[in-house]
Amino acid sequence: MVLEKKLADDGPSTVTPWSILLKRENHIVNQETLISSEDAGSLEAIKKSGLCYDPRMRFHATLNEVDDHPEDPRRVLRVFEAIRKAGYVSNTPSPADAFLRLPSREATLEELLRVHTPEMYEKIIKTELMSREDLANLEKISDSLYFNNESAFCARLACGSAIETCAAVVTGKVKNAFAVVRPPGHHAEPHKPGGFCLFNNVSVAARSMLQRYPDKVKRILIVDWDVHHGNGTQMAFYDDPNVLYISLHRYEQGRFYPGTVYGCAENCGEGAGLGRTVNIPWPCSGMGDGDYIYAFQRVVMPIAYEFQPDLVIISSGFDAAAGDHIGQCLVTPAAYAHMTQMLMGLADGKVFASLEGGYSLDAISVSALAVAQSLIGLPPGRLHMVYASRHAVETVDKVTEIQSQFWRCMRPKYISANPENAHVSRLHDIIRSYQAKKLFEDWKITNLPILRDSLSETFANQTLCSNDFFQKDVLVVLIHEAPLVLGDGKKDTNALSTSDSLLVDPGSLYIEWAMQQNFGLIDINIPEVVTGENKPYNMHEETKKLCTYIWDNYIELTSARNVFFVASGKAVEGIIHLIASRNVTKTVRCIVNFFGSEPLTGLKTASEDDLPGWYFRHSLVFVRSSDDCWKKPKKNKRRYGRLMQSEHDSATNMLEHHYRAVTQYFTHLLKKNDSS
Amino acid sequence: MVLEKKLADDGPSTVTPWSILLKRENHIVNQETLISSEDAGSLEAIKKSGLCYDPRMRFHATLNEVDDHPEDPRRVLRVFEAIRKAGYVSNTPSPADAFLRLPSREATLEELLRVHTPEMYEKIIKTELMSREDLANLEKISDSLYFNNESAFCARLACGSAIETCAAVVTGKVKNAFAVVRPPGHHAEPHKPGGFCLFNNVSVAARSMLQRYPDKVKRILIVDWDVHHGNGTQMAFYDDPNVLYISLHRYEQGRFYPGTVYGCAENCGEGAGLGRTVNIPWPCSGMGDGDYIYAFQRVVMPIAYEFQPDLVIISSGFDAAAGDHIGQCLVTPAAYAHMTQMLMGLADGKVFASLEGGYSLDAISVSALAVAQSLIGLPPGRLHMVYASRHAVETVDKVTEIQSQFWRCMRPKYISANPENAHVSRLHDIIRSYQAKKLFEDWKITNLPILRDSLSETFANQTLCSNDFFQKDVLVVLIHEAPLVLGDGKKDTNALSTSDSLLVDPGSLYIEWAMQQNFGLIDINIPEVVTGENKPYNMHEETKKLCTYIWDNYIELTSARNVFFVASGKAVEGIIHLIASRNVTKTVRCIVNFFGSEPLTGLKTASEDDLPGWYFRHSLVFVRSSDDCWKKPKKNKRRYGRLMQSEHDSATNMLEHHYRAVTQYFTHLLKKNDSS
Repeated sequence: MVLEKKLADDGPSTVTPWSILLKRENHIVNQETLISSEDAGSLEAIKKSGLCYDPRMRFHATLNEVDDHPEDPRRVLRVFEAIRKAGYVSNTPSPADAFLRLPSREATLEELLRVHTPEMYEKIIKTELMSREDLANLEKISDSLYFNNESAFCARLACGSAIETCAAVVTGKVKNAFAVVRPPGHHAEPHKPGGFCLFNNVSVAARSMLQRYPDKVKRILIVDWDVHHGNGTQMAFYDDPNVLYISLHRYEQGRFYPGTVYGCAENCGEGAGLGRTVNIPWPCSGMGDGDYIYAFQRVVMPIAYEFQPDLVIISSGFDAAAGDHIGQCLVTPAAYAHMTQMLMGLADGKVFASLEGGYSLDAISVSALAVAQSLIGLPPGRLHMVYASRHAVETVDKVTEIQSQFWRCMRPKYISANPENAHVSRLHDIIRSYQAKKLFEDWKITNLPILRDSLSETFANQTLCSNDFFQKDVLVVLIHEAPLVLGDGKKDTNALSTSDSLLVDPGSLYIEWAMQQNFGLIDINIPEVVTGENKPYNMHEETKKLCTYIWDNYIELTSARNVFFVASGKAVEGIIHLIASRNVTKTVRCIVNFFGSEPLTGLKTASEDDLPGWYFRHSLVFVRSSDDCWKKPKKNKRRYGRLMQSEHDSATNMLEHHYRAVTQYFTHLLKKNDSS
Repeated sequence: MVLEKKLADDGPSTVTPWSILLKRENHIVNQETLISSEDAGSLEAIKKSGLCYDPRMRFHATLNEVDDHPEDPRRVLRVFEAIRKAGYVSNTPSPADAFLRLPSREATLEELLRVHTPEMYEKIIKTELMSREDLANLEKISDSLYFNNESAFCARLACGSAIETCAAVVTGKVKNAFAVVRPPGHHAEPHKPGGFCLFNNVSVAARSMLQRYPDKVKRILIVDWDVHHGNGTQMAFYDDPNVLYISLHRYEQGRFYPGTVYGCAENCGEGAGLGRTVNIPWPCSGMGDGDYIYAFQRVVMPIAYEFQPDLVIISSGFDAAAGDHIGQCLVTPAAYAHMTQMLMGLADGKVFASLEGGYSLDAISVSALAVAQSLIGLPPGRLHMVYASRHAVETVDKVTEIQSQFWRCMRPKYISANPENAHVSRLHDIIRSYQAKKLFEDWKITNLPILRDSLSETFANQTLCSNDFFQKDVLVVLIHEAPLVLGDGKKDTNALSTSDSLLVDPGSLYIEWAMQQNFGLIDINIPEVVTGENKPYNMHEETKKLCTYIWDNYIELTSARNVFFVASGKAVEGIIHLIASRNVTKTVRCIVNFFGSEPLTGLKTASEDDLPGWYFRHSLVFVRSSDDCWKKPKKNKRRYGRLMQSEHDSATNMLEHHYRAVTQYFTHLLKKNDSS
């Protein structure tokens, strides 16, 4: 203990020759003597948390003296110092310490072989006696690894310390514990090291607990919040029903380290372990507190409660912390404290955190301190951002969908079907077919042929017209997205109650009005996806093409001297494009555009013939009140048309609620026309 | 303190005359002297939890000596004793106590008027000097209240103690606290007492904190897990944006006490307080740990994190506890500990619990002890049942739907539409219309007239037939529920992506097969709800009627000598009824029944003509492998038909996956028929 204290005070140092001697001293450990009894200790002791830190773990260092490797030997010292300076542990143990200092030791061969292959063990042990040159060569051919002659010792020490610290939690010597160890472990697979990791500390500790304390530990939850996927840990327990591995990590479709798709949401374990791997793969950097808390509330904690672990192990990397340049995420110390506090509700509070990655010395210090504070019972600090980003919501939804196969708490339960099967149809085809049938029955409205090759397939059944539109003086052209379908409120599965699900189609109000007035009508539906087509479909471009096609081939050739356009949502772009590219001013009386969630757009440039002026005089452009245009007035305002504020914020709602105003305005314009 | 100790040791007692003198001693309190400074206290003190208990609160008792009133004076003593016996507090305060004993005091008039009206205050104070007879009369005309001359004093004492204990948490004198007080408060409305409650302790405490500590306390969360709705508390803060009231309570459509619909999920606050009331109204008794944990994980904690309170107050009734005969729910001490632990993650750990109802002396003791243990930092015990019941899932879904208007974390966001509007259609009508159109186009299948009055409306568009079915030798009759519609995976709103939503209609496979074989066909769709009808629709009865109607009016009159039935889901009942009530054995070759989630049923009785034997020889009855019939074989097995085990568990899946087997079997039977 005296020597250990001395080392701690030394601060960072290089490898010293006596370390080799030193480490031999406790190479062989009788693990039974370390935790001498199964008793819970005194009332005073049970209230303490445990902390394991051994300055000898610094010995593992890169041989490259000019290169600052991110897996820096000072990492463990800085974490320990942060906790020591906060007054929770001292170099000379005292009863006033919140943490009980726990002894370190090396892992035994037997323990390591519970997870790793003998070949892998051999490969790492060999480095103890390798020459500098051989070590440098080995580094070159390895996957993100470096070695010196102390590496194997440090790896055994990190792993053995993790085991023993974890055992202190299981046996009740401490209520929970934190092992400040390096090298990290979660990338070390059973048969190969990688990603700065030599032995998989957490996996070996978990296996050892299941083996040593079969009565106390039947099920272990490992939560891995290191920013990287713990491929090694996932692999070690992929078919094990008794170890639930939950990882939150930057994934980016497998591009982020470890650079494979192994950490995808769809990988859920196999065999008896099916459903015992839960990957929450973030699609990008920049994930923060709101995202992690959301994932914990929606997925991690519900599944953890259902799993009912006897022990919780945190693979506690801090590279998702704000300030870590490798992780590039934004998790604050308060969020780490909250996640720890939530996990402390499980397993009778038996939580063991083991340091993994985290490469900003400042960020890991404050983050680890926050975890330590939660462990000793201090309330977690306040969070400032508790909203989940769209990325988090989408990821969590996907994980929920996948995990709903395995966990009762994950709802709704997803039923899947293959749209390629003959007896499976897409809802948007069904709805358009229904509309066509109904419009034909009610008003003899039929299909309008679209004969241009590139358009024909896409819009074949999407464009309808009244049977005599060619001869009418007044022509109403509706152009809109597919109508809204609202699923019913049942959330137990994704199977809808079709009697409670509703189709909301305000376009039908305009059609009915036009038919009752005996006007001509063209109704254009812009589909979001085209059934049966494999080529990419650019909705914006196709919509523009379609508008000019219909103008050139139909509208311009009709007898109509009064053309009215009503466009909504994404279809608005097509109309604005049409105004700019064709001479529509002679017959078009009015254009009504409903911007829903789309940003307000206008005519691109002021042309010589004052087209913006014409557009302004011949339009009603409905924009939601929350749009920026109401706060900061636009320049060249007229090119946006005559702006009307709408209290509704979707194009469907606007179509519905402004129906009377729009049709009355059309009627007014027609009367004015007649009288002039 | 000596006297107080004596009282505590006394156990339950009746009102003693000197209590009147005693209470005068500290009637006038300078509240500033009680918490003398804003300092957080020593490091030792900050780690302690606070406990307030004053045996004088027993003085409030019913005058009726033979009646054991559930709001029993011993309640507070039993709770205190449970915590004392566990060693967390002692009668003589000691530094080893986990709880710091906090002083009691009476609430001042000024404080009470922050919530209550002067008239109500007067009404209660008057009881101090009323005669026994007048008190008895008052009890008769009151809503679940009793009074003696000490009632007003006890009510002031309970309320003042709640205020002061809460202040000790806010100022940091203790980290959190528990006020073991009575009479309870949450039913006391601003203008009237009720439901055993005189003054609303928690509401007055909350208002006082906002007033006394405006810099420290800007937002308060009140979680009310008393089994009854806290109508008084909801009313006190209904328009207050700074106090979020969340209540979990037995509701039963307003039938459970307080017996109004005020605690319904739709009541969310008003004015500035809109969205600041969250009611989680259980539809029945028997709610347990899994239900409460589910509600906490899905609603309470996400909303609480988004609200970011500065203080959490628990209206901690224990009448939802297992063993409470009034509440009739099943919440265990472990669940109370978990809920407390979860809330301790909020507001820098500033949690104040105040006793409300709970009428089993044993249940409140163990439940309160569990809350106390969480407060002092002990890990919550293990839960044994963490699955939410269907009632909880449905209630939480409804609450989520409603609260999604106010809280970003509540997803999906619901969009509503009125099915009565002309431009709104029900999906099931759309789908049947689509199917009819497609079947006509593909196979000239048309509507089969159903002319009996009671059936005609219901099944008008639900029964189809091939145009020449009358003349065919082979007739296939399909009878099934509406096909499955799977909503797409987007969960941000209930608006479906229609291109990703799928209609799964395995019945179409059988139709196609029958048409290709040139057989006759009748296709019967059993709707779950009938559009446009207001009268109740009994699906089972209507289905039975329809099957016999079609038999009598069509099938029996056709030329078909080979009739095949394929029935699935709820439609199966109709076929079984038909076999029993008509002589079908002459022409029916085979009946295929797919039981989905429905319980297996068979022919009711063995008739003389061995109908069960005939059914057994002429049927295939598919039953999911998880059905009990595979474990415990049924008696009179033949009356269930020829049972076939299916690995699928919905009728739709069975229809789809056994399609080949069924149609091949039909072909085989027909060949056998031909050759015989």
